[in-house]
Amino acid sequence: MSEIRILTEDQLRQRVTLDAAAIAVIEDAFATLAQGHVVMPDIMSMQMPDVNGELDVKTAYVPGLPGFAVKLSPGFFDNPSRGLPSTSGLMVVLSSQTGRVQALLLDNGYLTDLRTAAAGAVAARHLSRSDASRAAIFGAGLQARMQLQALELVRPIGEAVIWARDHDKARALAQRLSRSDLPVRAVKDPREAAESADIIVTTTPAKHPIIRADWLRPGQHLTAMGSDQQEKNELDPFCLDRADLYVADRLSQTRRMGELRAAVEARLFGGDAHFPELGDIVTGRHPGRTAAGQITIADLTGTGVQDTAIANHALAAFSPEV
Amino acid sequence: MSEIRILTEDQLRQRVTLDAAAIAVIEDAFATLAQGHVVMPDIMSMQMPDVNGELDVKTAYVPGLPGFAVKLSPGFFDNPSRGLPSTSGLMVVLSSQTGRVQALLLDNGYLTDLRTAAAGAVAARHLSRSDASRAAIFGAGLQARMQLQALELVRPIGEAVIWARDHDKARALAQRLSRSDLPVRAVKDPREAAESADIIVTTTPAKHPIIRADWLRPGQHLTAMGSDQQEKNELDPFCLDRADLYVADRLSQTRRMGELRAAVEARLFGGDAHFPELGDIVTGRHPGRTAAGQITIADLTGTGVQDTAIANHALAAFSPEV
Repeated sequence: MSEIRILTEDQLRQRVTLDAAAIAVIEDAFATLAQGHVVMPDIMSMQMPDVNGELDVKTAYVPGLPGFAVKLSPGFFDNPSRGLPSTSGLMVVLSSQTGRVQALLLDNGYLTDLRTAAAGAVAARHLSRSDASRAAIFGAGLQARMQLQALELVRPIGEAVIWARDHDKARALAQRLSRSDLPVRAVKDPREAAESADIIVTTTPAKHPIIRADWLRPGQHLTAMGSDQQEKNELDPFCLDRADLYVADRLSQTRRMGELRAAVEARLFGGDAHFPELGDIVTGRHPGRTAAGQITIADLTGTGVQDTAIANHALAAFSPEV
Repeated sequence: MSEIRILTEDQLRQRVTLDAAAIAVIEDAFATLAQGHVVMPDIMSMQMPDVNGELDVKTAYVPGLPGFAVKLSPGFFDNPSRGLPSTSGLMVVLSSQTGRVQALLLDNGYLTDLRTAAAGAVAARHLSRSDASRAAIFGAGLQARMQLQALELVRPIGEAVIWARDHDKARALAQRLSRSDLPVRAVKDPREAAESADIIVTTTPAKHPIIRADWLRPGQHLTAMGSDQQEKNELDPFCLDRADLYVADRLSQTRRMGELRAAVEARLFGGDAHFPELGDIVTGRHPGRTAAGQITIADLTGTGVQDTAIANHALAAFSPEV
């Protein structure tokens, strides 16, 4: 018991932030995944319809990292009426040598937000044009803010637009994020938002496509990270057909619950169609963007290897005290 | 953070014991499972061959109970050479209403031992003859001891024998458990052990059958609880054929990793052969033992519903302090 480190959300927020180091850690994790050394079981999902709740459990073992994380992500959608956030959760970190519990990261999903944003940065770094300066963010939640912050860490972002179904929320977020060196404005027309950007990031819980294929323009990169469940879908399936390069975080997952799922259901691709994974791009096993005019798409559903990577990163930030 | 209750193995051992209340809780859990109200995903398993480790994650949602448990059971088989036990683990208890983390039960597997033994008691209560007084325990580990203790809580056990591959261990355990009102002796011949008993409980990690079908005698009840992995097997498959009644804890699990798996592989039954579950017997949906001369078998692989039940039971024992 005395050996188990317990870290609260506040502690983690103070010491573990979205920065170049966090992005590097997630990049390394995808590289290791591509090299085939990672053990990552299918996500365990439990639906509790009578209480409008669900639980996802993710884990991955990454050889070479001192620990592996088991992440519990509950979503209880009547919580807002009780004044509680819908999602919470924690990570349990076990020793890769002995399986003993090393730490409990009571992060309420903060580390998930961080590793999700960091994956967006990894995708943008390897797939967007290096001079990409205009961002369009779809959605006005926490990930909308964090994905913009992530883009700024890897690309010379000079302006941004925000679109959300609720325009007031988009306006409020734009106002909050706007700085003298980064004007951010809310736009009402999703097409205008998409067309204006070098990098588009979709962060919505949409179940019907928002982004249409004919809105995409040569040279754009699009990261879709809102779909983490089978019924979610942010992109018109033809976007994938139109793209020069489609990259999955984990192909077995995007086939089942990413944007690829909808494209397969629309019969644009076979269920076994092969595409590179983000780690293949990071390691150079598959080329990324090879021309300025290409359209690239990253489909991010969230992987256990990111959780294990960020958990180790977080623990390392506290290690002098252990 | 301040709302999360953290209980250590020592605390749990002091207040939560193998008693009639624990058995009742597990019996109720099986009844709820049989009534079809429980949500219980497949076990999540992760093999880490390069460190000789594995992880199992189990969970179940039981409507009506205040919380649900997610149990992490690591097994790292090089640990003994480091002076550590191979298995450890903990349960995370989340609120059934909000999904918020309520408690961490750092039990190192103690609650699993408890709910496993309690299931043995439930099986014996519903399947063995009510006058069963002679027990034969196969194995000399912790479950061997606990299963005998569990039997004493539900049947008038007056004598017991212990068989183990390592006879010295069997002898040591017999010596430890023997009392004036319960003589316990170790026997070298497994056949002699089996034939002498009204109730046989197998608790070994055997991968090849120990109990042969022609050793079984009319009136006996046998609980096999050692098989919780695909490669394990304690009973000659013909035992299941010979029995008048075979009962699974969870049929979908025993088909995959219980004694039933070996019997299906031996083509004694089809892969979809139907058998009652323990909860069906508890609720009376399926008759249990209907004649003194019947041979009954319970195949226990361990279920998430037991974990959720024992976790709630444990937390209730501490509730005045919460």
